[in-house]
Amino acid sequence: MTNIKDIAKMAGVSVTTVSRVINNQPYVSAEKKEAVKRAIEECNYRQNINAVHLNKGKTFLIGVAIPFSNHPYFGLLVEGIANAAVNNNYKLVLFQTNYEESREIEALMMLKHKQIDALIICSRICGWDIIDEYVSYGPIVLCEDARGRRVSSTFIDHYKSFSIALEYLHNKGHHKIGYCIGRKTGTNSKQRELAYRDFCMKLNQPLKPNYIFYDCFNFEDGERVVKRLISMSNPPSALLISSDQVAAGISTCCKEHNILIPNKLALMGFDNQPIAKIMNITTLEIPLVEVGRNLFLQAIENNDSSHQEISVKLIERLTV
Amino acid sequence: MTNIKDIAKMAGVSVTTVSRVINNQPYVSAEKKEAVKRAIEECNYRQNINAVHLNKGKTFLIGVAIPFSNHPYFGLLVEGIANAAVNNNYKLVLFQTNYEESREIEALMMLKHKQIDALIICSRICGWDIIDEYVSYGPIVLCEDARGRRVSSTFIDHYKSFSIALEYLHNKGHHKIGYCIGRKTGTNSKQRELAYRDFCMKLNQPLKPNYIFYDCFNFEDGERVVKRLISMSNPPSALLISSDQVAAGISTCCKEHNILIPNKLALMGFDNQPIAKIMNITTLEIPLVEVGRNLFLQAIENNDSSHQEISVKLIERLTV
Repeated sequence: MTNIKDIAKMAGVSVTTVSRVINNQPYVSAEKKEAVKRAIEECNYRQNINAVHLNKGKTFLIGVAIPFSNHPYFGLLVEGIANAAVNNNYKLVLFQTNYEESREIEALMMLKHKQIDALIICSRICGWDIIDEYVSYGPIVLCEDARGRRVSSTFIDHYKSFSIALEYLHNKGHHKIGYCIGRKTGTNSKQRELAYRDFCMKLNQPLKPNYIFYDCFNFEDGERVVKRLISMSNPPSALLISSDQVAAGISTCCKEHNILIPNKLALMGFDNQPIAKIMNITTLEIPLVEVGRNLFLQAIENNDSSHQEISVKLIERLTV
Repeated sequence: MTNIKDIAKMAGVSVTTVSRVINNQPYVSAEKKEAVKRAIEECNYRQNINAVHLNKGKTFLIGVAIPFSNHPYFGLLVEGIANAAVNNNYKLVLFQTNYEESREIEALMMLKHKQIDALIICSRICGWDIIDEYVSYGPIVLCEDARGRRVSSTFIDHYKSFSIALEYLHNKGHHKIGYCIGRKTGTNSKQRELAYRDFCMKLNQPLKPNYIFYDCFNFEDGERVVKRLISMSNPPSALLISSDQVAAGISTCCKEHNILIPNKLALMGFDNQPIAKIMNITTLEIPLVEVGRNLFLQAIENNDSSHQEISVKLIERLTV
């Protein structure tokens, strides 16, 4: 869609001038006015965006469903999505779901009613039975492995990346490895749990349920983990942590309790967020901005469905 | 507006069940189907949201213009806006402006065309001449002192808060105080510059232009500041830094160059972001989530314009 900036460039005037001409405001020379009108005609610019929608059936709005609006993980994803949206002259409609099914359904209903052109779900709560009801109304794009489904997806192989991290910790001499995760359910969580089970089985170790720490999302959650570790008679010697934020919280809290890192407790985060660099946390880098960009491009693609795996990278620092 | 969740509550069934009835899907008992249909009738729920728009002239969409999508300052503002939106059954349309006038005008045009009910501009680039052209089309809400204008605003008195911070540093024995800021222009930046000028005048000090560091937005910008400090023959002994992110970057870079904080250089941040707590940075707390909530409530108010000042709080830690 041609926008006001393109018109301004074509006419060789400022955007303000274009806006003034469109709105019949004074203080524009006849010469500039003529140039703007010519440019508008040339590229067939419609001021009435609603008319454009009716004509093309497009809103140039892409829905983005995220569970929380100020978690750095989703912040980086939205950054990638928003940058790509700006470059392609789309706007985003943000749905904060708080992981409530009804809010995700509201987003799906906006797709059904053509109020958005496509919907990106950054972390899903609805089951496939509900998603499947809406796939015919427009592109749905997910940030999880959705191969074989009638949606598009950009995903990390969380089974593989968790296995790589567990192997790394094991090779560093750790035999008592636990992990911290956000939700118990969710495709990504289940893949990680499976990798952990298979790893224990391979080493002939029983799976210790108390080595798994759930509901770990934010920096603040690190304190709860450390308190539980202190109370354990046989705590893990290393933790795999599905978010650098939580790893940073654990690291900070360990310092307060004089628990030496990595000697007493090794920490390995995920994402390689800025805080991991600041606090020298060993981590598995997930290029979230790139993932976000890819999600957006899949949303505006005409393909029925496409799937793209993004690979992770081990970043060695000082916490293992 | 009644939503699917309200219907479910009224009918005493799950949201999925409501969705199934609306979409004529199978697997719903006749009893539940009846309950849902009664509930829908009772509250006069329209499935076709577009019809609701045409009837009420409302979209339940609020536009939010931010310069960058992944800066923690704007992340916290959007968190406050998004939480309030969820509670009031509104969705947000996100405009990333990159501080380009044309993108802000696109947002204003969506207000004009009734594609959004109101527009919150978190950091403005357009001049008042442009904003004034759009005030009659719907509520415009700004995050700056806009008293006397035909918009609403939630704001910090940046003149006052900068003055408090300068006094505090001066009382701690600092006579060579510099400051770091994002944009040179912008209402908030100008207020801060004025406070700095008045402070220098009060102390009978000449204003040293090289004590002001511009384009300081992110953690990474801290490195540039430290490099310039090292090259100065008479550097400031204390810095007032308009973002905790930049303060954290300066602190980290000072450690690498063995510049002792606060003995050799005192640092005072703004916002009290999580990183300020983690790195023990003395700062002026701005309750950004509360500011965001207030911006949203002003956007859905029917008042012509309202203005609310939010006060700041000095948090003493270890960098001064």
